[in-house]
Amino acid sequence: MNKYKYTALKAFAKQVFFNAGMADEQADGAALALLSADLRGIDSHGIARLSGYMRLVDKGRINPKPRLNIIHESPSTATLDADAAIGLISAPYAMQIAIDKAKSAGTGWVAVKNSNHFGIAAQHAMMALDHNMIGIAMTNASPLVAPTFSTSRMLGTNPMAFAIPAASEPPIVADFATTTAANGKLEILQRKSLDAPEGWIQDAQGNSSVNPHELSQGGALLPLGSDREHGSHKGYCLGAVVDIFSAVLSGANYGPWVPPFVAFLDPPSDPVGDGIGHFFGAMRIDAFRPAEDFLHHTDNWIRTFRNAQRSNPEQPVVIPGDPERECEALRRVEGIPLHPAVESDLKKLAEKLGLNFSAEACA
Amino acid sequence: MNKYKYTALKAFAKQVFFNAGMADEQADGAALALLSADLRGIDSHGIARLSGYMRLVDKGRINPKPRLNIIHESPSTATLDADAAIGLISAPYAMQIAIDKAKSAGTGWVAVKNSNHFGIAAQHAMMALDHNMIGIAMTNASPLVAPTFSTSRMLGTNPMAFAIPAASEPPIVADFATTTAANGKLEILQRKSLDAPEGWIQDAQGNSSVNPHELSQGGALLPLGSDREHGSHKGYCLGAVVDIFSAVLSGANYGPWVPPFVAFLDPPSDPVGDGIGHFFGAMRIDAFRPAEDFLHHTDNWIRTFRNAQRSNPEQPVVIPGDPERECEALRRVEGIPLHPAVESDLKKLAEKLGLNFSAEACA
Repeated sequence: MNKYKYTALKAFAKQVFFNAGMADEQADGAALALLSADLRGIDSHGIARLSGYMRLVDKGRINPKPRLNIIHESPSTATLDADAAIGLISAPYAMQIAIDKAKSAGTGWVAVKNSNHFGIAAQHAMMALDHNMIGIAMTNASPLVAPTFSTSRMLGTNPMAFAIPAASEPPIVADFATTTAANGKLEILQRKSLDAPEGWIQDAQGNSSVNPHELSQGGALLPLGSDREHGSHKGYCLGAVVDIFSAVLSGANYGPWVPPFVAFLDPPSDPVGDGIGHFFGAMRIDAFRPAEDFLHHTDNWIRTFRNAQRSNPEQPVVIPGDPERECEALRRVEGIPLHPAVESDLKKLAEKLGLNFSAEACA
Repeated sequence: MNKYKYTALKAFAKQVFFNAGMADEQADGAALALLSADLRGIDSHGIARLSGYMRLVDKGRINPKPRLNIIHESPSTATLDADAAIGLISAPYAMQIAIDKAKSAGTGWVAVKNSNHFGIAAQHAMMALDHNMIGIAMTNASPLVAPTFSTSRMLGTNPMAFAIPAASEPPIVADFATTTAANGKLEILQRKSLDAPEGWIQDAQGNSSVNPHELSQGGALLPLGSDREHGSHKGYCLGAVVDIFSAVLSGANYGPWVPPFVAFLDPPSDPVGDGIGHFFGAMRIDAFRPAEDFLHHTDNWIRTFRNAQRSNPEQPVVIPGDPERECEALRRVEGIPLHPAVESDLKKLAEKLGLNFSAEACA
């Protein structure tokens, strides 16, 4: 795979967002949030989605010139109407409100409606770290997941992210779909014509399946836990909490009404709210105890878990965020590898917009 | 199994707590919290644990006359030193602080240190419902769970609970261990000499095991997800978040330092904090949107999910909290069945204290 410089890809994404009508500063912020996924190795959520976002702009579903508006608030909370903004803009905007609320009230919590896909949750949660705060980010998403005992696709992969600061150690950053496997992992198997492991998906009748194409035939992803015996009702609870916090608190669409990311599918014609929903939190460490005490003990927590006895001497015990941070360090130096299909998609997008995009220009 | 009247069991538990030195009101509150587990069908966490709590009083690890003290606070947060109280007392006390903070600041968040086992998390989270608030409760617990890729027991079953109010529908109440299976389920298999399903436990070397006695031989419970391929790293993240919110924020013991519930095992001799830790949250609905709008849409959410297509026509799709509420309705009328081993344990406790306990007296 060809590798591309981070700065070059970010500049390209910014230019695309700018061409779509976004203000310079917003185009820059959206490109930063988008490319954070590529840096951290979450390739399904980065520049590979750029043309998908643009199709939503073309459809009028993403508003490139949104007026973000706080429609409800209290000392520690706010609800934001994102005015159909791209989530890459509304999420950091909302997270900043949460951080500002936390400065005065100890914690800040912001529910967002009328938004769109926000990239990776971790990027937004991590904004809290510089302020010695714990950051939380979650979002609902297009319904692909069946609750335990159901064949209906009712929930998205509904990720939650937590970012927890430390002193000398790198922060703990957990970001995970509340399903057994994210949809991106199925796409990888599809490309390689490989079966999926048992426990990731079910067919349209609710039977366990290993066919990675099952979703296009009425099947569904399974909540974390896979089946009742292995706790899928817990994954279903987590997905439900993300859905309700993100959308029922904010006034967005929830459950089966969440609009699809793909522009060729229309949103449900009977919406129960506006756009998709997110939920953010920021908790000031020193609203609970002196920050240095917390940071010292978080360091100790991290070191203790990192040094736990290994099942396999070759496989370290992982602290949440380790793999993504290591990936970022590497890719900032060596560049970001793009799958040929993504390369070709971006070249078409560049041609359409009269921009330049090539491996040589971005190397 | 003999069935016992709720009111009779609660009166007995209250008397036991009172005899142990608790003030009348605290003994009553502790009995209420304890018996909520029996009512809701979580038999492992109810009156079956009464003599275990008493052994901790005898050991001096539970203080029957605690002075609960807020040691740090902000408009939306507080940290509580529970003074070695039983968690059945410190948890509702802390949750009430969270609710009071939410009344003025929109949300309230309370971290608790120097506490003990608090029964079922749902009972405390549900305190928020009467105030049109969302309630959250979590706690760390004795280390029985190995992180992904490790053989060390580093985390407890670390449950999290969410209680979400509705209008006409009963509230959504989710309460679950962040492991594939709770320890109580292993104890049931042990009594019946049955194997455990694959994915619940590993042996001392980190191999998958179906032996329900594995924990007494150096094995460990597995995080929700069971193995890496099925997302155990996500269950590990959830357990870590509960541990850090409950204990590193509050100043309690975390990870492998959490004191064991059983009195015959001494707490680690090198504590990193005080007692065990809990974390509570209360979010006022109308700090985000008008409460009636939220409640109406929660009703719609519940009905939509309850009416989702069933995989098996005989098995309804479950809304979190349904089974426990149905159990409570039944047990309030028909009584609470007690396992003979629990009956005999309570009879011994009664004899020791000069109290009366019998199926006839409690029928």
